[in-house]
Amino acid sequence: MKKVVVAVDESEESMYALSWCLSNLLSEKNINQNSTLILLYIKPPVPVYSALDVTGYLLAGDEIANIEKYNRNLANSVMSRAEAVCRKFDTTVKVEKKVGNGDAKDVICTAVDKLKADILVMGSHDYGFFKRAILGSVSDYCAKHVKCPLVVVKRPMPA
Amino acid sequence: MKKVVVAVDESEESMYALSWCLSNLLSEKNINQNSTLILLYIKPPVPVYSALDVTGYLLAGDEIANIEKYNRNLANSVMSRAEAVCRKFDTTVKVEKKVGNGDAKDVICTAVDKLKADILVMGSHDYGFFKRAILGSVSDYCAKHVKCPLVVVKRPMPA
Repeated sequence: MKKVVVAVDESEESMYALSWCLSNLLSEKNINQNSTLILLYIKPPVPVYSALDVTGYLLAGDEIANIEKYNRNLANSVMSRAEAVCRKFDTTVKVEKKVGNGDAKDVICTAVDKLKADILVMGSHDYGFFKRAILGSVSDYCAKHVKCPLVVVKRPMPA
Repeated sequence: MKKVVVAVDESEESMYALSWCLSNLLSEKNINQNSTLILLYIKPPVPVYSALDVTGYLLAGDEIANIEKYNRNLANSVMSRAEAVCRKFDTTVKVEKKVGNGDAKDVICTAVDKLKADILVMGSHDYGFFKRAILGSVSDYCAKHVKCPLVVVKRPMPA
């Protein structure tokens, strides 16, 4: 296992998937000096329709700036949490961070192919039927479109 | 990684998934004496409506017996191929075989939970849109219903 990409986001599920990956796929005896863990975070796009919202209300420039700032802060906070998880495992694996921008499922698939990853690890949001029907599932999409093996890690139910 | 279940069937994809598993999850330095590889094959159900098919033609008892025999032979041949793959890897991991019966996606999920597997590995049938819409996807279903992490292994396109 040389290049492991973990798709991280603000969810507990993705942090659990990262922990699982560090203890199962990237344990000390399972890595060598070529092993790399890539933390991949996709910022949601600043909506292109943002200049005019559905109510016809014009978003001012500083409101767009606020959305961008919020997204940037979110990216930093997700990456900090992910790095804290890595530190907890006291791993010697090389860790890289990549931040993309756009529709998560498309950007993840493109990034994984471009990085020539050996495996993609992601958490599973255990949405109910209704939320799933609306949001679709990033992992379903990736399972169909990504070229490398994909691990979907489910967080055990809290007891 | 203690208990690894690989769902095998007559497809090339599932044999590729098994090879991937043996070289990545169950490599010699990654296993201990508690590691077990479980080959899980689900026989399709002998249709309950078999006594009377859609044309109103009554299936004779020996035709049902023929279907059952065919299914049994298929199970044996899949398991033999899977064991041949294991032998090729010259692995010291303990290998167990389990054959279930019924609707693959349900039986796989139930079996994996009952076996308390640490991970489920399956191949990805890269069906086109039409076939997928009709057949549904066993791996999609398992990603949603199985409790342990699931690896979906995609066979690289033949060059």
